Amino acid sequence: MSAPLHGSRDSFDTLALDRVELQCGLTLRDATLAYTTYGELNPEKSNAIVYPTWYSGRHWENEWLIGPGRGLDPEKYFIIVPNMLGNGLSTSPSNAAEPYDRDRFPDITMHDNIEVQHRLVTEHLGIERLALVLGWSMGAGQTYQWCVSHPEMVPKALPFCGSPRTAPHNKVFLESVRAAIEADAAWAGGRYDAQPKRGLRAAARVYAGWGFSQAFYWQEQWRSLGFTSLEDFLVGFWEGFFLDDRDANNLLTMLWTWQHADVGNTPGFGGDTEAALRSIRAKLVAMPAEKDLYFPPEDEQWASQFIADGEVRVIPGVWGHFAGGGANPVDTDVIDAAVTELLAAEV
Amino acid sequence: MSAPLHGSRDSFDTLALDRVELQCGLTLRDATLAYTTYGELNPEKSNAIVYPTWYSGRHWENEWLIGPGRGLDPEKYFIIVPNMLGNGLSTSPSNAAEPYDRDRFPDITMHDNIEVQHRLVTEHLGIERLALVLGWSMGAGQTYQWCVSHPEMVPKALPFCGSPRTAPHNKVFLESVRAAIEADAAWAGGRYDAQPKRGLRAAARVYAGWGFSQAFYWQEQWRSLGFTSLEDFLVGFWEGFFLDDRDANNLLTMLWTWQHADVGNTPGFGGDTEAALRSIRAKLVAMPAEKDLYFPPEDEQWASQFIADGEVRVIPGVWGHFAGGGANPVDTDVIDAAVTELLAAEV
Repeated sequence: MSAPLHGSRDSFDTLALDRVELQCGLTLRDATLAYTTYGELNPEKSNAIVYPTWYSGRHWENEWLIGPGRGLDPEKYFIIVPNMLGNGLSTSPSNAAEPYDRDRFPDITMHDNIEVQHRLVTEHLGIERLALVLGWSMGAGQTYQWCVSHPEMVPKALPFCGSPRTAPHNKVFLESVRAAIEADAAWAGGRYDAQPKRGLRAAARVYAGWGFSQAFYWQEQWRSLGFTSLEDFLVGFWEGFFLDDRDANNLLTMLWTWQHADVGNTPGFGGDTEAALRSIRAKLVAMPAEKDLYFPPEDEQWASQFIADGEVRVIPGVWGHFAGGGANPVDTDVIDAAVTELLAAEV
Repeated sequence: MSAPLHGSRDSFDTLALDRVELQCGLTLRDATLAYTTYGELNPEKSNAIVYPTWYSGRHWENEWLIGPGRGLDPEKYFIIVPNMLGNGLSTSPSNAAEPYDRDRFPDITMHDNIEVQHRLVTEHLGIERLALVLGWSMGAGQTYQWCVSHPEMVPKALPFCGSPRTAPHNKVFLESVRAAIEADAAWAGGRYDAQPKRGLRAAARVYAGWGFSQAFYWQEQWRSLGFTSLEDFLVGFWEGFFLDDRDANNLLTMLWTWQHADVGNTPGFGGDTEAALRSIRAKLVAMPAEKDLYFPPEDEQWASQFIADGEVRVIPGVWGHFAGGGANPVDTDVIDAAVTELLAAEV
């Protein structure tokens, strides 16, 4: 949604991982974590920030929040954007070798993602403590997961428009995305040769109602994005989004990760979400969007009561979930101001 | 959702209509309006109530609000429940003769529906003035349309969980239902021999997230309906709902009616929704549900400002759109109390 600063579709780093043991009991062999970085790591290795991607997002789609003068200033910080497993750049159904290609790709948890990122940060980059973890949507979920999986490494966290445990209604919403893709016979149980485009377009129409609020559509705020009619927005923004190299099996893999997200399933917590939240040591500012239809503010307000230094700061306005997507400058400024403030805070 | 009082799948009345001239310019020949009635028309013909059906609903699915001691008391009132065109009982894609069968069925507007109902009420039943019009969802839309198409006949109206003009976001939600059905290759452009069940099931999953609120799912209120797990509810309630004799072309016909609903398109108003609302003479109590995700209270609040004797009374709670569906006794009592009060009011 903005011009890349450094990363692009063709330019990014990779970390080769010979073995990734997953929570489901399977092992990814010869896996790859695709990532990119912005800025320089200082000699003390104290200025690193992890900013994971969101559902279907790629590293360059996080860049709208990064830049000189912003909180995420690459002149001050070393910002690492790891691509989520399944997003098509890191190991995914679309690029994995047999036997884990396509429909055979194993189930990936939030914790699995964070363990891979942890290896990048510690073993590969030699960083022992981060300055901040933050992210939008599933990136927010990964932020919470970082706080629980490695509390000693995360002094500050800023999850926006996301939650530490996927709420039941959110799971139902995701069922509709899944059902739309799978309703297309061309999906063929994941064993397709060409993308099931009718199903992907249906998923795009499903997502359109959820991504922005009722008031966003009433006010025709899509005009600010350059669309000329409601249908133009549905096709140009949403169908274009889903047909932009977003593989159906990849989407279903990340959807599984999202549906099953729960910090309570971190090893050692035995499913106890509240205990997992109580283990968080970070100063954590959660920023739900006022009219987010699938991550409503209640989710983060519920979680916040169990986080010792947790705060909820609602992003006002009508953009719903996409308040955190970088397309609305007003919302972006609200998030950026909070990032700046949190980075400056004493902990 | 409750035992029938009188109507059933096999027992209802029909009105034969040799010609129905539609707003789209086509004419339905040998059309049928299926309806049922409860109670007796008094000699003054002053106790008739019209209570139209909702999206995919059939007359017996309105009966939960009718009964002795209720506002809609068949011992006092003559309650007429007309089945909407396209619902499978009145003339519909699934039962129309060629050339208007299946995918060739013409577009039906809200006004078309009300004109057919008007002929039933006036020409067939000899009623010149109604005591009340009310309805849920698209039934609420038909209620508004009655008020605009025949203001002299409607002294009182109680639309619940519906609006006089389908809001843009609501249209987007409906696009997702349509896209889910049409993603199934078995739909075949409407020229199927067997129902496109995969598409209908996908539509059911889409609808599930919209029909009830986030909090309804968080609180697991589906347990009160006898379901044992979230998946049990998605299959048993939602998939069962969509596979219960609900024909795909019928659903798409009613969906078109819903998407294009706008009292401003009543003849004489030239698309001016506000002018149409200003023409309403009824004492009108609009009852949106607090957490309705596709007919949010804002829609009715917007409309109410143009209605001379209009009032908005929000149904509180977490049941969302289905607060008006008769499944939650608490919400039903709130609606019933308003019906009772409105019927007793002087106008």
